[in-house]
Amino acid sequence: MATVEDLQKRVVELEKQLAAALQTKNAPHRDKIAQMSSEVVDSNPYSRLMALKRMGIVDNYERIRDFTVAVVGVGGVGSVTAEMLTRCGIGKLLLFDYDKVELANMNRLFYQPHQAGLSKVEAAERTLREINPDVEFEVYNYNITTVDNFQHFMDRIKNGGIGGSSPVDLVLSCVDNFEARMAINTACNELSQKWFESGVSENAVSGHIQFVIPGETSCFACAPPLVVATNTDEKTLKREGVCAASLPTTMGVVAGFLVQNVLKYLLGFGQVAYYLGYNALDDFFPTMAMKPNEECDDRHCRLRQKEHQAREAAKPKVEKAEVKEEEIVHDDNSWGISLVSETTAEELQAAEGDKPVLTQGVTVAYTKPAPKQEGDGDSTVKDSGKSLEELMKEMGNL
Amino acid sequence: MATVEDLQKRVVELEKQLAAALQTKNAPHRDKIAQMSSEVVDSNPYSRLMALKRMGIVDNYERIRDFTVAVVGVGGVGSVTAEMLTRCGIGKLLLFDYDKVELANMNRLFYQPHQAGLSKVEAAERTLREINPDVEFEVYNYNITTVDNFQHFMDRIKNGGIGGSSPVDLVLSCVDNFEARMAINTACNELSQKWFESGVSENAVSGHIQFVIPGETSCFACAPPLVVATNTDEKTLKREGVCAASLPTTMGVVAGFLVQNVLKYLLGFGQVAYYLGYNALDDFFPTMAMKPNEECDDRHCRLRQKEHQAREAAKPKVEKAEVKEEEIVHDDNSWGISLVSETTAEELQAAEGDKPVLTQGVTVAYTKPAPKQEGDGDSTVKDSGKSLEELMKEMGNL
Repeated sequence: MATVEDLQKRVVELEKQLAAALQTKNAPHRDKIAQMSSEVVDSNPYSRLMALKRMGIVDNYERIRDFTVAVVGVGGVGSVTAEMLTRCGIGKLLLFDYDKVELANMNRLFYQPHQAGLSKVEAAERTLREINPDVEFEVYNYNITTVDNFQHFMDRIKNGGIGGSSPVDLVLSCVDNFEARMAINTACNELSQKWFESGVSENAVSGHIQFVIPGETSCFACAPPLVVATNTDEKTLKREGVCAASLPTTMGVVAGFLVQNVLKYLLGFGQVAYYLGYNALDDFFPTMAMKPNEECDDRHCRLRQKEHQAREAAKPKVEKAEVKEEEIVHDDNSWGISLVSETTAEELQAAEGDKPVLTQGVTVAYTKPAPKQEGDGDSTVKDSGKSLEELMKEMGNL
Repeated sequence: MATVEDLQKRVVELEKQLAAALQTKNAPHRDKIAQMSSEVVDSNPYSRLMALKRMGIVDNYERIRDFTVAVVGVGGVGSVTAEMLTRCGIGKLLLFDYDKVELANMNRLFYQPHQAGLSKVEAAERTLREINPDVEFEVYNYNITTVDNFQHFMDRIKNGGIGGSSPVDLVLSCVDNFEARMAINTACNELSQKWFESGVSENAVSGHIQFVIPGETSCFACAPPLVVATNTDEKTLKREGVCAASLPTTMGVVAGFLVQNVLKYLLGFGQVAYYLGYNALDDFFPTMAMKPNEECDDRHCRLRQKEHQAREAAKPKVEKAEVKEEEIVHDDNSWGISLVSETTAEELQAAEGDKPVLTQGVTVAYTKPAPKQEGDGDSTVKDSGKSLEELMKEMGNL
């Protein structure tokens, strides 16, 4: 039989092993870094990013720490988006999702089988903190489209910046449904918050990103959502209850496009894309910029347009070059959309029939029904908050 | 003082905790799956991939398990490439690298700080096996460009397929230097092995993939390596000893393009890109196809060209449509390169001067020195194997 001494030795040994096992599992594996350094040593996680300064791409990379980005939806696109921003050393990330990790998500990057069952935001936060403990996180495991959550979501957009009383710098929509996109659109129009929309088609072989500057570019309510046309049977795509296909490739590319344009916007290099599509079958990448619809259903969008026009009118002519200078093709159509495109209006009209005038390869996700004639014709979209339920009901009817 | 009973209880308790801690850390977190299923349940990691069949994109997704891909270089592009293929359920992966994980790699996707110090292939294999235990792995922690390793590398390309006596289906070059690319090119020309080249510029804002079919498209020795022009000072890029910049975005996009085209090639959908560039500053994506150089320095390339011409001549006219049908712009130039491009030869010649005629936005990584006049003028590139040292010496002189 074992002696007390034997057992004590065994306890010490086991405690040591357990501590080691737990440490490998839980401990933060690098310390926080107070200041980003350009020093070229193997132990510096920022050396390859700070090198962007020496390469003449970015003037002041350290600024990345001043920015806050909200990522709504941390699935196939959103999780990779959050990981890229974390590895780039973004100051603060807000994550919103209400889904759980499932084995059925393993065909996309980021989540691992041992995380199945965890909420996506919880699993994402754990992994991201381990990757970069310098990033600040706020995560919310809820659906932004319910009334109470929407109010809270609006508040976090308005006050979620570093320090806790400034707005976030950008909102990134990485959701997979119309209701959530419309809620983000409503919030961002009301708060005059710049945001990026992103999406991947249900057949997994196309995707897009779109930059929305309230009042300056087309919002999500100005026109039906745009998608890259993929030459597949539209009926297949629309069938209800069918499990959508997805690929880690398409989602990784869309996340890459999204974060690249976020970095260009935040750090001030290159040209930010207003719309960038990805057709994987043909490696085709439509781009365009769309002006907002003056008759947009969203009251706050129309308000932001007026404000933008006033700002533009007040500017001295020379200074107004933030927006990429391209020849603008004005073209009246049933959607009230004007756009910048290399394709002629005639080519598009022939190809798209009654749809908005769009660049080659891009089409609308669906056609808009005729407006209903109930009550006040000017109030089909209400303020956010109290009236969101009504808004949702209307969306359900679309 | 503790009694023997107390200590025994403590030992049992500690053993239980240790087992739990180790299990969370090491245990495979999902069992192998004998056959891919389309069943739409949360526990099926293949449901969203098998849905590609129902969506009309892929005829027989299960075939993915029959394929073997070799990934050379598992850094910023190669690790994400391997992860995407693993999540897609590829049959077998061969990984080659001789580098260690460092904190300085944390600005790109895949590796995590706790893996610092492990060899890249070891760290990658552990993570990938946990993500998908159905994939078969062979990993080699060596530099393919030394004489012995090159012989072994050639053998694994030739016999590394599933079953152990067939060649791999594709080789993917995800390396970051000229010598390794040239070694892959030499091996693939000799073995008539199809491969993809990939690359990211040192200023982190452009990248490309290129599909090489020996004898059918331009090999790496037919012309200087192509890069996407990025409007930055070339001198900055060429300076020796300067730490290159890198971004998770650009590398993720290039990996996405690479694996997407691998899937299109292996599973037979869409159009495989011969050259696809990515200019992140402007979201510009040049594409083209290049015919091989009849005077290529690589003897095996010239041999493969003759074989290809013979096969083409023997084919009935109707069947020869595997290669995308485009109007081919033949244009003699100092590089002997012909290419398929939407840009006219005149536009290009004006833009590129003495360089090969390339599609808009693409240029060569460097200009080729005049051939040296020592010995037999026809043998500047030797057979692989015994003569590789000489080849390396010549590369060093470039």
